[in-house]
Amino acid sequence: MINEDYTPEAVILANGEYPTHTLPLRILEEAKFVACCDGAANEYISRGHTPDVIIGDGDSLSPEYKERFSSIVHQIADQETNDQTKAVLFLQEKGFRKIAIVGATGKREDHTLGNISLLIDYMKEGMEIRTITDYGVFMSVNGTQTFESHPGQQISIINFGAKGLKEEGLVYPLSDFTNWWQGTLNEAIADEFTIHCTGEYLIFLAFV
Amino acid sequence: MINEDYTPEAVILANGEYPTHTLPLRILEEAKFVACCDGAANEYISRGHTPDVIIGDGDSLSPEYKERFSSIVHQIADQETNDQTKAVLFLQEKGFRKIAIVGATGKREDHTLGNISLLIDYMKEGMEIRTITDYGVFMSVNGTQTFESHPGQQISIINFGAKGLKEEGLVYPLSDFTNWWQGTLNEAIADEFTIHCTGEYLIFLAFV
Repeated sequence: MINEDYTPEAVILANGEYPTHTLPLRILEEAKFVACCDGAANEYISRGHTPDVIIGDGDSLSPEYKERFSSIVHQIADQETNDQTKAVLFLQEKGFRKIAIVGATGKREDHTLGNISLLIDYMKEGMEIRTITDYGVFMSVNGTQTFESHPGQQISIINFGAKGLKEEGLVYPLSDFTNWWQGTLNEAIADEFTIHCTGEYLIFLAFV
Repeated sequence: MINEDYTPEAVILANGEYPTHTLPLRILEEAKFVACCDGAANEYISRGHTPDVIIGDGDSLSPEYKERFSSIVHQIADQETNDQTKAVLFLQEKGFRKIAIVGATGKREDHTLGNISLLIDYMKEGMEIRTITDYGVFMSVNGTQTFESHPGQQISIINFGAKGLKEEGLVYPLSDFTNWWQGTLNEAIADEFTIHCTGEYLIFLAFV
């Protein structure tokens, strides 16, 4: 059963809006290792924190921080990936597998879409990564899985080619959705629910 | 050629974050007909505007507004659609075809995903609908199309089953992408670009 207890080995602070909800903020606060995408580093540092690594060319850093933190700026030249993925690849190389991403959404919507959909690719690489936003948790899943929930919890399922989708413990029936919106706005009935299928999908567990 | 000149016959103010960018605000200001989803109506009214219709059960309205605007609250009982789609269906029935949606993003990310992906379904219904956010414009497209752009403009293409994707006038090559992120973070080279393909896709034209 997948539940909210999730202690990541490392946390990525991505280039979206800085988190405001207590849960992503606490995950960031308690992180054992923090990789900042460089667009997020200024705010993280100015709030009194020190990242373990800054991923990017450092060009988004203030001149002062750029000098002070030059030793931890890690540049990855790859036009095929975005900064979030560069941070994931860096952490993967360091041996981290269980990662939380915060600050990945809330600015340009195409970046939001990209960052969320990448969870599917990370799963294929054997990584266990969750994106924690101000509104809930996104995770990628392969096949049948049971999730802890609370009655009335808002649940959205976004299909990435899964077949035979059936629900147990959700208000609205699932089917082999072909468009994203079709699996949104579902709701947990009780303390757990199960999704039956083969193949991959994203799930969003809202905090409410 | 698709360009920025877009005078919608009606505007939907959806339940996400109230727009802050001048372009969606101007579209809302100049709208000939405004349909407010009821979660957005309080703020629209308190800013001194009067919607032409409020779509929803009115439960999100303040008690004062609920009484004052009761005559324009239009309730559609349908558990299969969200408020944005209810507003689209209402406007379609009134004969509107060319619609701008503002305020559709910026809160719960699953709602953002749902609202954006619905543009594909609206296109299948013969509607011409654009979502204008604080960062750019989303539209649904079927087949080969040329778009007006400016050099360096950020462009993202999200594939909904289109085949034979090829670009003309973009920095990075297109292919038949299978995951959302693969078509993000492209860039226009000059004043126009063309996407060649058969089938449907979403395009995001950033303001920058």
